[in-house]
Amino acid sequence: MNDVADRPLGVFDSGLGGLTVVAALRSALPQEHILYLGDNARVPYGTRSAETVVRYARGCARVLTARGVKALVVACNTVSAVALDMLRAELDLPVVGVVEPGARAAVRVVEALADEATPAKIGVLGTRGTIASGAYTRAVAQLSTRLEVIGQPAPLLVPLVEEGWIEGQVPELTVRKYVEPLILAGARVLVLGCTHYPLLAPLIAAVARDLAGAEVPIVDSARATAETLKELGNESRITLRASGESPGRLEVLVTDLPASFEAVARRFLGADLPDAQQIDL
Amino acid sequence: MNDVADRPLGVFDSGLGGLTVVAALRSALPQEHILYLGDNARVPYGTRSAETVVRYARGCARVLTARGVKALVVACNTVSAVALDMLRAELDLPVVGVVEPGARAAVRVVEALADEATPAKIGVLGTRGTIASGAYTRAVAQLSTRLEVIGQPAPLLVPLVEEGWIEGQVPELTVRKYVEPLILAGARVLVLGCTHYPLLAPLIAAVARDLAGAEVPIVDSARATAETLKELGNESRITLRASGESPGRLEVLVTDLPASFEAVARRFLGADLPDAQQIDL
Repeated sequence: MNDVADRPLGVFDSGLGGLTVVAALRSALPQEHILYLGDNARVPYGTRSAETVVRYARGCARVLTARGVKALVVACNTVSAVALDMLRAELDLPVVGVVEPGARAAVRVVEALADEATPAKIGVLGTRGTIASGAYTRAVAQLSTRLEVIGQPAPLLVPLVEEGWIEGQVPELTVRKYVEPLILAGARVLVLGCTHYPLLAPLIAAVARDLAGAEVPIVDSARATAETLKELGNESRITLRASGESPGRLEVLVTDLPASFEAVARRFLGADLPDAQQIDL
Repeated sequence: MNDVADRPLGVFDSGLGGLTVVAALRSALPQEHILYLGDNARVPYGTRSAETVVRYARGCARVLTARGVKALVVACNTVSAVALDMLRAELDLPVVGVVEPGARAAVRVVEALADEATPAKIGVLGTRGTIASGAYTRAVAQLSTRLEVIGQPAPLLVPLVEEGWIEGQVPELTVRKYVEPLILAGARVLVLGCTHYPLLAPLIAAVARDLAGAEVPIVDSARATAETLKELGNESRITLRASGESPGRLEVLVTDLPASFEAVARRFLGADLPDAQQIDL
């Protein structure tokens, strides 16, 4: 039993954005070992066809399972949206995406807000691929039949975050362009449906508050996913290390090592990264 | 001899931006057949390491040479900046990049402007990879020892163009942020060092004029590259079809076919695209 517990959680993303999920996991489950794979030689996935995303996701999963991870965390909304069923069907280990935990957290928040007559709507910001897939709409529909989901593709937010433009006029105007249609359509909760977006959370919250004339709760899928892993541990569906154990190790694999790598990685992880190993997919 | 003339020019880019080069080629050499390859399953190259760009470029070149192209046009500034020497060393056919033609056109323009005492400087906008490589600086140095080149990485311009945000507040503020340091440092000619940027040319020209208080000539590498091909034909270094021949065919290969494909392609080509064939690299 100990053997399984000591195996790492495998986490992968199209690039480095998934490190926001790693940060949430390390805060919720500090004793867990984590093996992270960022396919940053092919980032972003969010603008590609579903067929290509499935092919890339399969390659990432193969690397992590070959290294003996005990569970797979798909820290990428686009992959969670279009390739999760495939991964679950093909792999013989627990697979957790970020969409279902995010949808569950959003439903919890919105049900606390809603009045019976006019239930609040859930707004989702995501990549083109995530929104086009309708994954959040489906995930919410499985939890409640009376809640409406409005999706808004927000493709410029990823490059803004990658550049570190997270405050100032350009990010604010861009966020406003994406958030305004959601608020006008009645969204009163916003889901950050991309692992890059937590870095823009303060700006998104401020713009939404300004547009709605009231506080708009922001749901961060990264944090919701870490909570889901903890619950799966409590239900013994994943074997976690005992909570008193020594702090877990973080090991990082990437498919590219550009000059900007360390600075960008630190931004997402909120801490210094261990040396990353470059692999070929 | 006729056989060689009828073979297509092979043109490749990391994605669809290189279609601006195809548009310039079709206007300068309408009788030429063109085989275009866009590696849009792995776009963008501009943020990746030089090592990864070289590997991807080799894969693209292999596909085109296997299909019998008579010359290779590297319609991507990042590849032209970091992988052109490798391609020329490894391939047994003429290889033309976009950096040398762009640099040559910029030198011509700036020498017409310059007064002897204070020669004008050349400003280059490009991806991180292109600017970090110093390729434009080297190309200009080979033509003139007295001209100074100032490079400015402008990584947000590619996603803006891909989204079709080419006018309005966000693109204007973003362009201003990139162009201002160039004008302040004395640039009086701007080179569009990325095949995406011609779509932003009117905005870049307007912002530069406003900042400099005078017209700032804009050099479009796409057009300069088409002119270079024409010159190579005149010097019989590439065998072109006779200018009276029937219009050339355009054939397009891509590595991904996302939903937005046709709209984005049309934007770059300025015309409808023929059916694209998807291949695996």
